[in-house]
Amino acid sequence: MFSSYFVFRNFAQPSMEPKTLQNIAFIGAGNVASHLIPAFISSGKQVVQVVTRSLSTAERIRKEHQVEVVTRISELTPLTDIIILSVPDGAVHDILGNLDIDNRLLVHTSGSLPMDVLFSATRNHGVFYPLQTFSVERAVNMREVPVCLETNQEKYRDLLYGLACSVSEDVRWLTSKERKIAHLAAVFASNFTNHMFMIAGQILSKYDLPFDLLKPLIEETAAKVQEHHPHKAQTGPARRNDRETIQQHLDLLKNNPELHNLYQRISEDILRLYGKGKE
Amino acid sequence: MFSSYFVFRNFAQPSMEPKTLQNIAFIGAGNVASHLIPAFISSGKQVVQVVTRSLSTAERIRKEHQVEVVTRISELTPLTDIIILSVPDGAVHDILGNLDIDNRLLVHTSGSLPMDVLFSATRNHGVFYPLQTFSVERAVNMREVPVCLETNQEKYRDLLYGLACSVSEDVRWLTSKERKIAHLAAVFASNFTNHMFMIAGQILSKYDLPFDLLKPLIEETAAKVQEHHPHKAQTGPARRNDRETIQQHLDLLKNNPELHNLYQRISEDILRLYGKGKE
Repeated sequence: MFSSYFVFRNFAQPSMEPKTLQNIAFIGAGNVASHLIPAFISSGKQVVQVVTRSLSTAERIRKEHQVEVVTRISELTPLTDIIILSVPDGAVHDILGNLDIDNRLLVHTSGSLPMDVLFSATRNHGVFYPLQTFSVERAVNMREVPVCLETNQEKYRDLLYGLACSVSEDVRWLTSKERKIAHLAAVFASNFTNHMFMIAGQILSKYDLPFDLLKPLIEETAAKVQEHHPHKAQTGPARRNDRETIQQHLDLLKNNPELHNLYQRISEDILRLYGKGKE
Repeated sequence: MFSSYFVFRNFAQPSMEPKTLQNIAFIGAGNVASHLIPAFISSGKQVVQVVTRSLSTAERIRKEHQVEVVTRISELTPLTDIIILSVPDGAVHDILGNLDIDNRLLVHTSGSLPMDVLFSATRNHGVFYPLQTFSVERAVNMREVPVCLETNQEKYRDLLYGLACSVSEDVRWLTSKERKIAHLAAVFASNFTNHMFMIAGQILSKYDLPFDLLKPLIEETAAKVQEHHPHKAQTGPARRNDRETIQQHLDLLKNNPELHNLYQRISEDILRLYGKGKE
């Protein structure tokens, strides 16, 4: 607990608070940071320093973005307005134990971690979660990526919002619970979807058919739900209650019990959804 | 069996065979036909007639494309080079029983039906299967849609190929078995994928979060596999063996045993695929 005297002093020294979040340090340089760093630089922000334990990543970041990169958390510069912690969820706890940031603003970029895991390191914390699937080798247009924000400090609300708007046109306030829900939904919409592509590719390659055959279909399936709700967008054997085709597909999968079961499972879901399944 | 005399006569009268498939009749006016008709018209082909039992569809097609539409199969015109049968798989058998087409070329547009279901109606048959998810209300760029062809008549091979090339830049020969496999893969890549979007939307709406939040993610997930194989494109908790997040997600789904089971099922598949699952 802080005494009211302490809180008063804090508010009485507004000059100690930044007027804008201009100078940024990153802890971690994985998929998310690798996309945020160039986005911030393009928008005129200063990425003052990046901390990463990986020497090869350090080299890459230095070369690509001409920013200072250090490999030890103890070397973290005190000269930043905000520190963005972008490491695997499991690594957060250890890093916080070694962090001395003097109550500067600290945010993490995780979909799942509650905001208040950061409380042990600083009073001033928040979340900067870009909801997207990032891979190092693929450029993404950050301006279209929804950035989900949270902060425990009213005084940082506008500053954090301004920082997010510098890279994205889609900035939203989500609570820790809402963010966790959004992340769960994203696993279905992206990771599990990609797994369906994976299975489709395996089925094709077993018969020497190329994955290319499905690319326009995959593009259109994703484009369709940009305009129409998935409930309206659905097509296929289960949607039109075509039991004969479903049975033929199950017969084709009879030597692969896992896939047979998955096909049956999802088809029954769709049949039920459109009022044609067994109850 | 035809006598060699008969075959000789057939080849001896080339004037009876069309030199190009210019004049087209459609039987059926559903999602597939509704996209093929304008594509053929734009490419300079003549859609001579459409047969559909639905009066409202007949009205729509007449109005949109200024083609002759009749509602009874007995009114099918004899003046076409090819008849495209584009009806639900289950309706094909009945239609064939009522069809008198005098050995003109007849093709169906089904992913699942073998080519030779058409044998009862004509010696000259084939398949014209555009591999895409079509909905009446959405325009699709047909030039990018893979068209999978098959024919039992060597003499129609080039003609059918030419017809497909008039609407698409991606024309392929697939056997009935290969087409059935491609259709099965398409169910995973499109229908089941759309179902993942549906589940994601349901999860979000339970917490009053908008589906919009996932649109850029869905777009990027589909765009990524245009360049990289899904095996390389995968991200997420199961990909990075993040057991804690997986467990948290399962906890969130504990009141929905169906979804809980599906999440667990697919996550275990992904864990196994990247060498981190239980064997």
